[in-house]
Amino acid sequence: MSDITTTTYPTLTLADLFQERLQQVETLLDVQVADEYSSLALALRQLIRAGGKRIRPRLVLLTGSLLGSDPNRLVHLAAAVEMLHTATLIHDDLIDESVLRRGMEALNVQWTPAATVLAGDFAFTRAAELVAAADSTAVMHLFAESMAVMVAGEMRQLLRERGIASREEYYDWISAKTAALFELATGAAALLGRADAKSVDAGRRFGHEIGMAFQIMDDVLDFTGNPVTLGKPVGSDLRQGVVTLPALYYLEAHPDDSALNALIADKRSNEHSLNRLLAAIRESGAIQSALAEAQTFVGRALEVLASLPGRPERFALEEIARAIVERERK
Amino acid sequence: MSDITTTTYPTLTLADLFQERLQQVETLLDVQVADEYSSLALALRQLIRAGGKRIRPRLVLLTGSLLGSDPNRLVHLAAAVEMLHTATLIHDDLIDESVLRRGMEALNVQWTPAATVLAGDFAFTRAAELVAAADSTAVMHLFAESMAVMVAGEMRQLLRERGIASREEYYDWISAKTAALFELATGAAALLGRADAKSVDAGRRFGHEIGMAFQIMDDVLDFTGNPVTLGKPVGSDLRQGVVTLPALYYLEAHPDDSALNALIADKRSNEHSLNRLLAAIRESGAIQSALAEAQTFVGRALEVLASLPGRPERFALEEIARAIVERERK
Repeated sequence: MSDITTTTYPTLTLADLFQERLQQVETLLDVQVADEYSSLALALRQLIRAGGKRIRPRLVLLTGSLLGSDPNRLVHLAAAVEMLHTATLIHDDLIDESVLRRGMEALNVQWTPAATVLAGDFAFTRAAELVAAADSTAVMHLFAESMAVMVAGEMRQLLRERGIASREEYYDWISAKTAALFELATGAAALLGRADAKSVDAGRRFGHEIGMAFQIMDDVLDFTGNPVTLGKPVGSDLRQGVVTLPALYYLEAHPDDSALNALIADKRSNEHSLNRLLAAIRESGAIQSALAEAQTFVGRALEVLASLPGRPERFALEEIARAIVERERK
Repeated sequence: MSDITTTTYPTLTLADLFQERLQQVETLLDVQVADEYSSLALALRQLIRAGGKRIRPRLVLLTGSLLGSDPNRLVHLAAAVEMLHTATLIHDDLIDESVLRRGMEALNVQWTPAATVLAGDFAFTRAAELVAAADSTAVMHLFAESMAVMVAGEMRQLLRERGIASREEYYDWISAKTAALFELATGAAALLGRADAKSVDAGRRFGHEIGMAFQIMDDVLDFTGNPVTLGKPVGSDLRQGVVTLPALYYLEAHPDDSALNALIADKRSNEHSLNRLLAAIRESGAIQSALAEAQTFVGRALEVLASLPGRPERFALEEIARAIVERERK
């Protein structure tokens, strides 16, 4: 796979081409949390270093490069988006009392609530510094707007008196929770270039659509995934009273399911009926319907993408979009 | 006082001149938290409406106007600084488990920790939106940098194993906690104009010096103030194990005071010895020494200010600086 001259897969070629820039992003992220020699900053650093596939920074680098944005500013933007992602994870884990994050104990398990609040705030300030370094007021606007959408979405979710009970509510929620950050990644990357308004809009929409697909797949995997790969038991969402797309499709087919209705009314699950409900959802057509919905979002993303220049970066973005709905098979 | 033609006090004239812009700041602040029709956003709105003398927005408007900055951008910057101030108060009150804020129950008393975290985050995002509207990447940089200084200072304070035991530690702490935001207010306001680097630097230093004086006065008033005006009992800081300048001067004169040394070692006060210690500090020369120190900071601020243009705004800034150390007499 490292011999790029013999491969015909554009993602591999691009993966190599972008490896250096991704490495610059990693260095920036690391440096941003390195100047505080406190144990708390070290914990934040560990969390960042543990951080997964870096899909958001990749989207920034590829979309920006496709649309002619300056590589150095893109690297800062990519780091800013990933840092913002980390900041929201820290506060969300605190709020949701999550136990695991990226295969490690969540910060809120290791630290007091006070320290966890500050660690998240610290990551927010670092994200702000990185985005300021991208040196574009238009990007700043989009960054602030996206952050506001995400936090307002969390507030709505927290204050909701009953659980999510319709696909519309669900889409609103994941749009704020997940798609807003994907949209920021691709939209801000496009803004940094000399792209026209139409291309910037296409960039944003591409990010939004794959963000929606990404979250739906996450929610499907919570029903069907391998607990070992997931790092959490199957059905964690329902267990915590969180109703996602597969459950909502099931509800549409079984509007009188008492366990599910009770869970929506109380925002908490009844351990007794949970396993029956999980099995029923898994065996129903709800999973397939949710998967088809994710496919539809990816289809829309690819359609939008087709309006952008036919350069190698575009093919790499197509691969990323397709890979989102293929996660399950891997 | 409303008849500006008969008064000879420049602050009053300027107070009237700036009334309209301050009103615009109020409107902006209000609008920023009005588009979320949740009870949590309403609570945030109440907190902002209760918000005191608006010294930071005044500093932005006056410094910026003195140095020729655009009024519309200044109004957005002024609102951004006040919103950032509010955001930090919300998280600080949560961290310190404060009970009162601006004469009302602190948000963390009315709301769960989760909701309070989000309310603070929400205010942060609003501050970011407002500062983005000021439309200057240089200001964005300073804003992000100041935010980082403030949060890093809070982290150091939280993780400190023993209480503050020297004036040097105290100055480091209040520089991050209070002066950084004052420096942001005046420095960013200067940056928005066509001021040369020397004037921008003078603007920043002016803010820093009065910020230091402001916090010292706050800490002195905690010993000498009227509990009714303060809205909290006298000696609240020591009661919570927080050592400030008067106590540090007292310590220098009485290095063997066992109650104070125990408090510094444990970061908590012993109710039994507290009243004796409070009285001893009040009756010592420590209060006068701290007041003199605040005067010194104001003196430095006035010196820096003298290098800036001799326009009415400068005289108003001088009045604000002087008023800081005269708070006690009022």
